[in-house]
Order: sequence, then structure tokens, then C-alpha cells
Amino acid sequence: MEETICLKPIGVIRSPLASREEAPRQGSEADITGTILVEERYAEALLGIEPGQEIDVICWMHLADREALRVHPRGDVTRPMRGVFSTRSPDRPNPLSIERVEVLAVEGTRITVKGLDAVDGTPVIDIKRRM
Amino acid sequence: MEETICLKPIGVIRSPLASREEAPRQGSEADITGTILVEERYAEALLGIEPGQEIDVICWMHLADREALRVHPRGDVTRPMRGVFSTRSPDRPNPLSIERVEVLAVEGTRITVKGLDAVDGTPVIDIKRRM
Repeated sequence: MEETICLKPIGVIRSPLASREEAPRQGSEADITGTILVEERYAEALLGIEPGQEIDVICWMHLADREALRVHPRGDVTRPMRGVFSTRSPDRPNPLSIERVEVLAVEGTRITVKGLDAVDGTPVIDIKRRM
Repeated sequence: MEETICLKPIGVIRSPLASREEAPRQGSEADITGTILVEERYAEALLGIEPGQEIDVICWMHLADREALRVHPRGDVTRPMRGVFSTRSPDRPNPLSIERVEVLAVEGTRITVKGLDAVDGTPVIDIKRRM
């Protein structure tokens, strides 16, 4: 097994959510509109992304607790703790999120999307078209 | 933006697929059964994962080409090239895959799943319960 894997962010999220406390537990329920600013050097990799499509955006949840192995589901302390791999909590050893969003507009390397739950400044790791 | 992000694999895939050429284009269509071997130190993080559940498994596609920005969709050279972010090709700057699989059995830190398309030895980065 590889010991350490290194990622380079391909862009960053611009979102009206300034902090984790403001973030909904399920972005798709909240319909938050925000922007993915992709770095210019990846412009070519966006060819084919168009309004109306659904995409998966993998983000790095930079504010997460990487030491947590158990959490209260949805942050509700009255519920019994569960292993982080049995939840979608941001707190986990490798805090990647999967955001399933709809493309509203593409202008150069700026993609406007609906359905985000990432806070402003979240690094973007990957984008995949949904099948 | 963070310049470089480092991940530690939490486990490894054991699969009957020995090479990328054998891998289907869509794992869920193929119903391949394999095993996720999670490292012992993350045992606690599995609490709550049970047979019958659907989980998202994020893997590191260690055989991918990280320099590719455009590809022929589904490897078909008769189709026009598209940006990698507009596909689910393994070739991309940060080659993470999202495998949506069904849990068949959990024995300690060994999880047997159906619906994989990862080759044997693929590092596992994260596991999330599907909502």
C-alpha cells in the first residue's frame, strides 16, 4: 500500500456559507448556490461541462477533525455515537466530501452550481460528470 | 488555498480484477464482489456498518494518468475528446474514484461488498454511509 498520497487542489469553492455552523447537514436539501473557481491550468479539463448537468464535486473539508473515529450522528448528542465511516460527518481521517450539484452556468473556468454545502474557501479536489 | 494535501490510506481493496483492462466502465453494472480490508487502527470508525447497507467508498486509482486533461469518453477513440472533469475516466489530476457498493458482510475490519470496479490492491481513502 502507498504510504502517503498527495493531492493538489484544482480550485476553490466560493459560497455564502462562512462557517461550518452555518452549513446544512445535506446540501442538496438546502439548494445553496455557489461557485467553483477552477485554476486556469485545468481549463481544458472542463470541456463538455454545460448548464443543466449534474456533477459530483469532491472537496477537502479543511475545517474537519481528522482524529475523530466516532461521532454523534448529525451532531445530535442525544443519539448514540457511531463510527465515522457509518456516517457522512465531515470529521474523519481523510475528510473528503462528495457534493452532488447541478451546473447553472459555465463562464471560462468559473462554474456556478446549485446544491452546495461547502463553506467559502473549501479546496476542490476533483469534478466528475454524473452518469 | 492549501498547496498540498496529504492523505493516508485507511485500507486496501481485494478484488478479482488484476488489471485496469479487466475493469468494467461501470462497477455497479458488473456486480463484482470484493473485500475492503480496513486497517485495524480504524476498527472503531466502522461501528454501525452492517450487511444490506449501501456505502460510498472513495479509492485512490493508483494506476491512473495524472497528466491527462482530455480523454476519449469510455476509451472509445471514435468519440470526440472531452475534458476529464466532464467524464468519470480514472485519468485526471487527482484520481479519486467513488464506488457505490452494497455491504454483504462485516467481519472485524474486513467488509465484503458487491458492485466494485477497483483493481486488486487499490488504496481505500474513505468510506461513507449512503443516505
